[in-house]
Amino acid sequence: VGFSAQGTTQMRREILEIPDLAAGLLMGDMDPFAATAAAIRSARPRLIAIVARGTSDHAAVYARYLFEAQLGIPVSLIAPSVTTIYEGRLRLTGSMLLAISQSGEGRDVVAVCHEARRQGAITVAITNEPASALASEAGHVLLIRAGAEAAVPATKTYTLTLVAIATLVSRLAPRSELARRLGDLPRALAAALPAAAAWVDDEIAASFAATDRALVVSRGYNLSTALEIALKIKETAGLFAEAYSSADLLHGPIALAGPSVPTLVVRPDGAMGPLVDDAIEALQLRGTVPFLVGGRGVSGMERSLTLAPELPDALTPPVYALPGQLLAEAVSRNAGSDPDRPAGLTKVTDSR
Amino acid sequence: VGFSAQGTTQMRREILEIPDLAAGLLMGDMDPFAATAAAIRSARPRLIAIVARGTSDHAAVYARYLFEAQLGIPVSLIAPSVTTIYEGRLRLTGSMLLAISQSGEGRDVVAVCHEARRQGAITVAITNEPASALASEAGHVLLIRAGAEAAVPATKTYTLTLVAIATLVSRLAPRSELARRLGDLPRALAAALPAAAAWVDDEIAASFAATDRALVVSRGYNLSTALEIALKIKETAGLFAEAYSSADLLHGPIALAGPSVPTLVVRPDGAMGPLVDDAIEALQLRGTVPFLVGGRGVSGMERSLTLAPELPDALTPPVYALPGQLLAEAVSRNAGSDPDRPAGLTKVTDSR
Repeated sequence: VGFSAQGTTQMRREILEIPDLAAGLLMGDMDPFAATAAAIRSARPRLIAIVARGTSDHAAVYARYLFEAQLGIPVSLIAPSVTTIYEGRLRLTGSMLLAISQSGEGRDVVAVCHEARRQGAITVAITNEPASALASEAGHVLLIRAGAEAAVPATKTYTLTLVAIATLVSRLAPRSELARRLGDLPRALAAALPAAAAWVDDEIAASFAATDRALVVSRGYNLSTALEIALKIKETAGLFAEAYSSADLLHGPIALAGPSVPTLVVRPDGAMGPLVDDAIEALQLRGTVPFLVGGRGVSGMERSLTLAPELPDALTPPVYALPGQLLAEAVSRNAGSDPDRPAGLTKVTDSR
Repeated sequence: VGFSAQGTTQMRREILEIPDLAAGLLMGDMDPFAATAAAIRSARPRLIAIVARGTSDHAAVYARYLFEAQLGIPVSLIAPSVTTIYEGRLRLTGSMLLAISQSGEGRDVVAVCHEARRQGAITVAITNEPASALASEAGHVLLIRAGAEAAVPATKTYTLTLVAIATLVSRLAPRSELARRLGDLPRALAAALPAAAAWVDDEIAASFAATDRALVVSRGYNLSTALEIALKIKETAGLFAEAYSSADLLHGPIALAGPSVPTLVVRPDGAMGPLVDDAIEALQLRGTVPFLVGGRGVSGMERSLTLAPELPDALTPPVYALPGQLLAEAVSRNAGSDPDRPAGLTKVTDSR
């Protein structure tokens, strides 16, 4: 099955829904976002603790950079086991707890949310399931409205979670460039999709499917994108696809790079771009010609895909994830797997 | 060069120094630890922000579990780029900033420490270099007293950083089991070293050196151990050695496991043990016979190494790191590399 066979998998069909779903979310009922933002402003949390698992943990990485860089509020990405296994009593009074779970059924995520609410922390859930355990536990619920996701690998629910996060932060920082440009996101996603689908051709997919190792590199807001693309490739195609911050890559794991290791670099425009360029140069010195996804900064470069050059770095993660999601789907099919039902993967990221 | 050639590399010689250095640190001048603990108690921080890079970032993961589970204070592992690139103003007033850098020269770590102190946060540095930029920037300095580290991969400086962290937390939780048992650590390290060196034989090293992929799995306090062992193998031998929390492994990356992928599981005794067993079972179902490092719980199991069965889970990370450090050194030599000077690795984890 070649990549040109449109819509042949549920995973691919669900990726193709993303622009319309994002438009629907942003043009839909904004009252829950407004009410949650008002409650957060009045609570003035000194710390935002985020609890999430799996794909949602990568959305949490995006949320973390947004809360810290746009609002100046420190973020703790919570390890649920501190509460659920070690029985530590994390003091969350005066903090905000953000729980992210597409299914809303991850037991440890629900347990942490319960404990935070018991302590009087403001609790916010981002989920796709209004009737879930998490939605009934949290004080404020933001729905991502992604509809049913039939493929096991999360794609549209991941991206819509990012959109919900950006919407909440926009409400908290109404004069930011993020808030001003948020409305451009659905159009940018719609424009990016055919470009990404054309770029992720059989040749790229085959180069990943032909090996058992791959690297995905970015930094800052798009560290979330690198983590998510690597996980998607890992889950759907069984490759050792590993994500690195470009800073961390240069401190040692660059030893893994080489001509036989396909490498995808997400290189945003803006202040972070030149720092990611350091990693691109180091990769080239080791004989790698990386695949590049980015804005104006990668335009005209070999193996590059320019998407949404008009968006600020902070809004690019939902857009830059698209070619990665399509790539994971294509690599999986190229390797003879079924991207909709990868071995070893389950939908609810529950855990003891 | 076989593994039995004792002391042939600086890396190995430095690993062998660890028990004596730990004894020296714990029996040395405790005044800085006492003074720092007193200052933290009086500051009553609501949040502990930790900034670190590379190997020190894994020590930060250990610190995070200790601060959260033993003291109930939420921890944020800081992304330096929020301050240094995105120019976000992270509000750290009322927080504590812990900066961990063996060289004390990582520019972004120093920059974050500077900004935290400017805001009036209590700042604590853990470093091996009393004359470093970080030591002069921080309000409180805890020296790890590891001596000069000649091999490029950090081993004794990593472990001594863990010991310094455990010492500080013991001072803050003087009635904890951690505090009561801390003094047993040097003896446990001394007993573990020959056992670990005997266990890491040519056969184990060869099984890792014969492939380009490996998995290292643990959870909780020893997630730090898994991360550090994987990084060490990656840096010194160029393998795609990837670390996972056993919880995260089960949510997807288990697809990477199989008989041809050597896998090391660090399985602590205590409440976390049975949860890591879930991952061991899942690995076995995929045809993997994992190498096991742990306490009583792994005793008698195939390919297992029991170390320090008397220590509580919270104190095992310095001990369980030993076989991993020796393994990285042996795999590197088995693969024909020089563990003291791996390609692409530099000592100061600096970054733009």
